Amino acid sequence: MLKEIPLDKVQISDKFWSFYIDTIKNKTIPYQYSVLDNSPFVNIENENKKDYFDNEKSNALENFRVAAGKTDGNHYGMIFQDSDVYKWLEAVAYSLQANPDSKLQETADNVVDLIAAAQTDDGYIDTYFQVKEPRLKYRMLYSGHELYCMGHLLEALVAYYQSTKNTTALKVAQKVVNHIDTVFGYEDGKIHGSDGHPEIELGLIKFYELTKDKKALKLAEFFLDIRGKNVDFYAEEMAKNKKDGLPIKMIKVPHLETYLVAHKQPKDMTEAVGHAVRMLYLAASMARIVHHNNDSEMYAACKAIWDNVAHKKMYITGGVGSTTDGEAFTGDWDLPNDIMYCETCASIALAYFAYDIFKISPDTEYIDVIERTLYNGILSGAALDGIHFFYVNPLEVHGNINDANPDHGHVKRVRPQWYSCACCPPNFARTIGSVQRYIYTADKENQTVYLNLFAKSRIECDDITIVQNTDFPNGNSVSYTVSSDSPYTLKIRIPYWCRNAKITVDGETFDNVKNSRYFEISKKWNSSKITITFDTPVMSIKANSKVIADANRLAVQCGPFVYCAEQIDNDSPLSLYRVSAQDIQNAVLCAESCSIGKIPFIKINARIENTQESGLYTYNPQAEYTAATLKMLPYYAWANRGSEDMMVWLHQG
Amino acid sequence: MLKEIPLDKVQISDKFWSFYIDTIKNKTIPYQYSVLDNSPFVNIENENKKDYFDNEKSNALENFRVAAGKTDGNHYGMIFQDSDVYKWLEAVAYSLQANPDSKLQETADNVVDLIAAAQTDDGYIDTYFQVKEPRLKYRMLYSGHELYCMGHLLEALVAYYQSTKNTTALKVAQKVVNHIDTVFGYEDGKIHGSDGHPEIELGLIKFYELTKDKKALKLAEFFLDIRGKNVDFYAEEMAKNKKDGLPIKMIKVPHLETYLVAHKQPKDMTEAVGHAVRMLYLAASMARIVHHNNDSEMYAACKAIWDNVAHKKMYITGGVGSTTDGEAFTGDWDLPNDIMYCETCASIALAYFAYDIFKISPDTEYIDVIERTLYNGILSGAALDGIHFFYVNPLEVHGNINDANPDHGHVKRVRPQWYSCACCPPNFARTIGSVQRYIYTADKENQTVYLNLFAKSRIECDDITIVQNTDFPNGNSVSYTVSSDSPYTLKIRIPYWCRNAKITVDGETFDNVKNSRYFEISKKWNSSKITITFDTPVMSIKANSKVIADANRLAVQCGPFVYCAEQIDNDSPLSLYRVSAQDIQNAVLCAESCSIGKIPFIKINARIENTQESGLYTYNPQAEYTAATLKMLPYYAWANRGSEDMMVWLHQG
Repeated sequence: MLKEIPLDKVQISDKFWSFYIDTIKNKTIPYQYSVLDNSPFVNIENENKKDYFDNEKSNALENFRVAAGKTDGNHYGMIFQDSDVYKWLEAVAYSLQANPDSKLQETADNVVDLIAAAQTDDGYIDTYFQVKEPRLKYRMLYSGHELYCMGHLLEALVAYYQSTKNTTALKVAQKVVNHIDTVFGYEDGKIHGSDGHPEIELGLIKFYELTKDKKALKLAEFFLDIRGKNVDFYAEEMAKNKKDGLPIKMIKVPHLETYLVAHKQPKDMTEAVGHAVRMLYLAASMARIVHHNNDSEMYAACKAIWDNVAHKKMYITGGVGSTTDGEAFTGDWDLPNDIMYCETCASIALAYFAYDIFKISPDTEYIDVIERTLYNGILSGAALDGIHFFYVNPLEVHGNINDANPDHGHVKRVRPQWYSCACCPPNFARTIGSVQRYIYTADKENQTVYLNLFAKSRIECDDITIVQNTDFPNGNSVSYTVSSDSPYTLKIRIPYWCRNAKITVDGETFDNVKNSRYFEISKKWNSSKITITFDTPVMSIKANSKVIADANRLAVQCGPFVYCAEQIDNDSPLSLYRVSAQDIQNAVLCAESCSIGKIPFIKINARIENTQESGLYTYNPQAEYTAATLKMLPYYAWANRGSEDMMVWLHQG
Repeated sequence: MLKEIPLDKVQISDKFWSFYIDTIKNKTIPYQYSVLDNSPFVNIENENKKDYFDNEKSNALENFRVAAGKTDGNHYGMIFQDSDVYKWLEAVAYSLQANPDSKLQETADNVVDLIAAAQTDDGYIDTYFQVKEPRLKYRMLYSGHELYCMGHLLEALVAYYQSTKNTTALKVAQKVVNHIDTVFGYEDGKIHGSDGHPEIELGLIKFYELTKDKKALKLAEFFLDIRGKNVDFYAEEMAKNKKDGLPIKMIKVPHLETYLVAHKQPKDMTEAVGHAVRMLYLAASMARIVHHNNDSEMYAACKAIWDNVAHKKMYITGGVGSTTDGEAFTGDWDLPNDIMYCETCASIALAYFAYDIFKISPDTEYIDVIERTLYNGILSGAALDGIHFFYVNPLEVHGNINDANPDHGHVKRVRPQWYSCACCPPNFARTIGSVQRYIYTADKENQTVYLNLFAKSRIECDDITIVQNTDFPNGNSVSYTVSSDSPYTLKIRIPYWCRNAKITVDGETFDNVKNSRYFEISKKWNSSKITITFDTPVMSIKANSKVIADANRLAVQCGPFVYCAEQIDNDSPLSLYRVSAQDIQNAVLCAESCSIGKIPFIKINARIENTQESGLYTYNPQAEYTAATLKMLPYYAWANRGSEDMMVWLHQG
């Protein structure tokens, strides 16, 4: 089983990622704190034009103050508003681990103290239920999100303790775990159910990994076993509340158990269904528990879910979730580009799942997907200014449709400052803020280090030191200087988008290194030098012919970056352009400065249809095309220059 | 102002339409009666998989029996369930007018008697409010549909009286009109509002046209003036009900006034918005009232709405309504093919609107749209068996998407037997069952007859007799034998899809007659003979480039028929086929027998993409195509051979 290398063992100095890590530290984290503390300068939007949720303020921190008895007031915001604070705290933990900052740490310490003050003596903590609905504590697992929030709390506290050794954090976490253990389990008198939104499992496993408290691992195993065991569990909960005259408070979905991914036990799952974030947090915890219990049945289920997502239900951006209805997976090959969901959180969950299953049995395929999400579908979740965020990440938008068709009401064309349901912004901060975790992975048993991503960085791990030097993604060469006391195997991932890779190891040259696999070298390393050079030509992409939405369409990728066309750089509408695979493959990068800095645009010698605007329908048209250059930019950078139409999948012709 | 020719003056013997008229008489009408009378053999479906409306039975007739005190029980079904009976009765009226049938008339007479028995002494009739919610009578015009139902009742009774001289029908209608006059109007103490669903206006105008009761016309004018005068009218109604502790019972829509098409006064309207059927019933009544009051402001509004619909918001099938959310119009050029609404009733309403505006100032454009709806979007509303019906008429369906993506939950691939909201089936029966009304229109002032549609038929109207002989759509020649006592102008519509039309009038030949206009001849007719021959080549169609959904796509039409490809006749998936405009224009009709009879298929020499099934995404694909024949059938006939994928707009390439 592979192990993550502790964040403080990896120093990242990569230009591309350091921009984000610095932005998250200097802008995103302080900005998000101000929002959570009810900054009056923030405009909070609903996820969908059709929604009418509370959005005057976040109130997330104030909810804790009310629960702690420090101020008067009521709970405000989503039932799971607490988790915004927890994810913010986790982002801070990672930032501090890489870049200590006493002022930020003081702010975060105070937040930990506030959480501790709000926690009740028995270890319970959920400001919504403490302040607003004590009658319903643990009585609406179908939508209460108590354990979901506590899962995020455990993840945050574990990370914060690892980063700062804050003992209050550890104590609060231990109290939470002890508390859950008194309430949930197979024993008589305990609740035989799990939270409608998976997440507690990951928190418990991480707590176990830190403390070796077997109780936490056992609880995680319990939650992964009880889920879906009684498919009527949530319906029975609702019926009981109704019978007892309590409010139900459930969003209306056609198949509740599937939406909650509790339609069967996890070990029996074979495909990705239901709410995408629920599905993939669950899958990540399924994979992670296999690290500890080697459950082969659970591993087989993980593999099946993986294959279904990665091979049939994943957008080229690493986005997942084809419908806003339940923010959910739909059928195989159903990947609409304009009304999909592709929630930022879902891509994040996919990356987590990918990494946890990778560590069980490493394969480049998992890193391919992590890379795809990181450089595309997750990164598009935030604006380049670090303080505006997408919830939904479309692959195609057209303003006239978006503005007037309610079926597109969830698709925004510029990133809002915040959301009434603000799960994505702090999730972005904790994930991209700790991106260095994916660069290297250690296999201590086999004295092996996996070199997953090209990024300028340095690790010191046990008795091996690797210095990676590269300008990637702005350059096409990477060098490693490696020193180790004992023999080590290095496995260098040669990405699928590399062409003509050539590797030199201490003067010995390997030509035509195959891509989509690890290049493996074992030796005792003594300031040894490895250099890799490769090409990253512009590539055309075709979707499987079963993907109806992409029929007769082509997409563009260069290195790990999926590209898109924005209106501002091109003629209107974008759907007039026609490209061939060869046009795309002949295209070249041409970095140009624009309002958002120097961008590696791609210019394609394409054709544009001459418009025949004689009415709504033209009979026996004469199709005429004129040579025209189509300009594209990396997908992650879209929607940073105003409200623009955008297309990833271009019309072939 | 042009006048419709009474249905009994037109004898239709056209093969194509007679099939439908006979099917409606012999199957649809008796079948629908059995459903309305709770036949146990009918499976009633909800419009959307996500809906949970009552659907154990129709109960529509039983509701009247309960209201009349003939049986005990409660009201069951939609709030507007009464209108199903009324539209059925109207369909019967037209059927009897063309083909007398004493047994059917007896059944219908009994229904009229039942309605009369249910009507209260003051003239009110609405079984929902009489039986279930008397407190809310006229207190929820936003969704009560009382006047909508009474409008359908007036239309039905007028038609039934015209057809059968049933005096009870006339009495019930007069009582309804008198009653409405006591409740609605600008006078103090009357309600200053109109129904959330337009329809009463058409009923009142038709009643006026029959009886010349000015009260009815004045009421129609009132309803067309008061609508949108106070945009808060419906919100105030709801607020009042809430204040008085009454239930609200409103479906949740983001912009209520727009949904109800009461966002402004009709005379100020400039585009089609809101619920498509509401919008177009309203527009039809706006046009129809201009027949009587020559209101130029209202006519200008009709023209603006018309231009918006016909030139920017109409599917090539004559379908309208681009979203299921509010069953509504969206923005200009927004015509998605797979998640649209295209309700059968909306195309019917469009045909009504087109005919009423045509009669004000005749232009072939209006008949083009009527023809487009009749031969395509309305006709697809029923199966060839006459007893299964579509509510939603998509232009593209793919089973794997439909089955698993809730955004497509309203799109069905086979026509159900009935719906919980059953507005479309009887609307189909009354419209197609009286299709002969569109063939000829008289302009008595100018001694002119407009010959709108090619269909074997005969009219005798005043002192002119026209016998039209043709095998169209199976043949490409039409002859007219015309006799008149006085000089007459004939205006023969040469449709836009005619090519090389040649006309001979009593031996005189006119070559290269222009299409998309009327061919006009004035003379005294003495067994005169006109013959027209023309070509109906297969035509390719391109949508305006602003229609994003149809970019890089082509459609196929031959004569008035839009064609579509069904899975059963072709390789899978249909999205693999590539066609050029020239491929389509080179195609020919080839009638073939299949399970639904002899069908005029079109076979296109196209190409099919060779599938490269190496995974979800292929990099730098080698596009390869093989010659392949794509087989298409008329759109109206789709979904008669099982649950098939279908495409109207083909991929160009």
